Amino acid sequence: MKKMLLLYTLLIAGFMIFLYFFYFRSLTADSGLPPDERLQGTMEEKYVMVTFQSGIDYWRTGLKGFEDAAQVLGVSVEYRGATQYDINEQITVLEQVIARKPAGIALSAMDPEALVPTIDKAVEAGIPVVLFDSGAPSSRAYSFLGTDNYNAGEAAAHKMAELIGQRGAVAVVTRPGQLNHQERTAGFRSVIDSEYPEIDIVAVTDGEGDQLESEEVARSLLAEYPELVGVFATEANGGVGVGRAVKSAGMLPQVRIISFDTDKGTLDMVKEGTIAATLAQGTWNMGYWALMHLFHLEHDIAQPGAERKSSRVPPLPVYVDTGISIVTQGSVDDYYAK
Amino acid sequence: MKKMLLLYTLLIAGFMIFLYFFYFRSLTADSGLPPDERLQGTMEEKYVMVTFQSGIDYWRTGLKGFEDAAQVLGVSVEYRGATQYDINEQITVLEQVIARKPAGIALSAMDPEALVPTIDKAVEAGIPVVLFDSGAPSSRAYSFLGTDNYNAGEAAAHKMAELIGQRGAVAVVTRPGQLNHQERTAGFRSVIDSEYPEIDIVAVTDGEGDQLESEEVARSLLAEYPELVGVFATEANGGVGVGRAVKSAGMLPQVRIISFDTDKGTLDMVKEGTIAATLAQGTWNMGYWALMHLFHLEHDIAQPGAERKSSRVPPLPVYVDTGISIVTQGSVDDYYAK
Repeated sequence: MKKMLLLYTLLIAGFMIFLYFFYFRSLTADSGLPPDERLQGTMEEKYVMVTFQSGIDYWRTGLKGFEDAAQVLGVSVEYRGATQYDINEQITVLEQVIARKPAGIALSAMDPEALVPTIDKAVEAGIPVVLFDSGAPSSRAYSFLGTDNYNAGEAAAHKMAELIGQRGAVAVVTRPGQLNHQERTAGFRSVIDSEYPEIDIVAVTDGEGDQLESEEVARSLLAEYPELVGVFATEANGGVGVGRAVKSAGMLPQVRIISFDTDKGTLDMVKEGTIAATLAQGTWNMGYWALMHLFHLEHDIAQPGAERKSSRVPPLPVYVDTGISIVTQGSVDDYYAK
Repeated sequence: MKKMLLLYTLLIAGFMIFLYFFYFRSLTADSGLPPDERLQGTMEEKYVMVTFQSGIDYWRTGLKGFEDAAQVLGVSVEYRGATQYDINEQITVLEQVIARKPAGIALSAMDPEALVPTIDKAVEAGIPVVLFDSGAPSSRAYSFLGTDNYNAGEAAAHKMAELIGQRGAVAVVTRPGQLNHQERTAGFRSVIDSEYPEIDIVAVTDGEGDQLESEEVARSLLAEYPELVGVFATEANGGVGVGRAVKSAGMLPQVRIISFDTDKGTLDMVKEGTIAATLAQGTWNMGYWALMHLFHLEHDIAQPGAERKSSRVPPLPVYVDTGISIVTQGSVDDYYAK
């Protein structure tokens, strides 16, 4: 009888201890909020990043940002993309991703127009889509996260003026058919024309985004304009190509090169002094905040009345400018992949 | 002896049940991540929103966004501000907030220059600062979240063209000394001049941000330009003032008014048809994403090498465009505060 009492006492005590710990953990771990009001998803929620030329180094930091956001939000991510610079391949990949109904898609659009019907199809099927790095303004994607390329061109112009003592002949090596490169060139030209009357842009040439082609183009420029003191290459392959041409022509101390992006080839040339400066984009932030946007869309966290299904009010910021920073010999070591 | 065995068995079983639940909850609630890698702060972390004319209706939705972000992140917020349109008062309030070393400050700057030394002092003291709604570009604040006002002016111009059949005389009532209003006017003018050759902007006038003054100004405009078919008011008091003038002159069916913001007075005039359209800003998103930015700064969640203490690389997106939407009689009910 006495032992039965002890037994019941122990059972009740054990249950109360269990209840206490259960309740205590609820308070500390959950802050008393219902689960759907915290920024925590589940591993079943899969978000997909879709690019083109998916194997190149350039996407690595953006994907790291995407993965880091998944880590803090407790969700899964996947990386897909067209392996080539091929719009039909990217459309096919995007169709395949949509068919598997992911929790959201972050897309870098190879072409601002050709992907619009596929993007809109995903949005109409209720799949959140945001664009990063390279946009498609006429699509129904909820936001765009990337560099303000006009602004980046302006920054390149000011840096160029500083490097060449605000006077002399300069050239641009670019991809004239692609929107982001047009914007970089326009920003560069606008600042040079309006603020540096003693600098002349003597040529804007097409390097085709290719290292060898850009080297060839730069060689012709150096022959035609021996007085050249600066070249702005609006993309990374162009910068390395121009660097090789200037170096082999022995014109390095005279011609200052400004390039774009921070792949290893570019950083090595900044380190050795061939490229005077390169513009680093906020690629980690593109990936990180793209996933943050998708998570908010999927969980419908927005102003009351501005949820994803309501078409009138934008549920998210429509544009996120991830900024640039200027890399020089003094700061280049900070930019190598860690 | 047998009962002692039963007792021990029960004790061990109870302990194992406890361990099981403890472990199970750890897995589900914490996803196995250490606490500092999840987006959860503590209630001791206090973030402060600082405005000017702090009592006006306009800030309410932005503060709601700030509070909603605090809710999902498990942190505290506080609202402060200069009660008047008085730069010295705002500097004093900001100094007081800094002295209490909050986890972060979201500031709407009344003046783009006068607050810079105080903002920079906070950043140098290690307090994260972001700007929203009204910026201070030369300061060391980490980001700006707000409307792209030039773009908003462009949208107003397209809407005006639609309302008046792409022809006729229009006027602008604005605050010519304030940057955001200059940008709205410039965007409006740029689209009208380049895309609508049969629309003339016959006057740009100063309504001083005041309802009575704007009413007076509009009355003169209507007398001087009886052919007027449209007025763009770049701020809310101006819109209501112009609305009253047009109404009392009996020129309502002829003169279409486009205004800015969604205070109750403006929405009422949209509802009754006096104001044809008004531009709603993404104020909830300004507040929500401002706190998101501050939380990331305080917890140093950024690309490796781009943490807050590293000065070279921007730790956050530098600019967040919270977008606009156009409110008309058909959609006005969605915009009343809920």
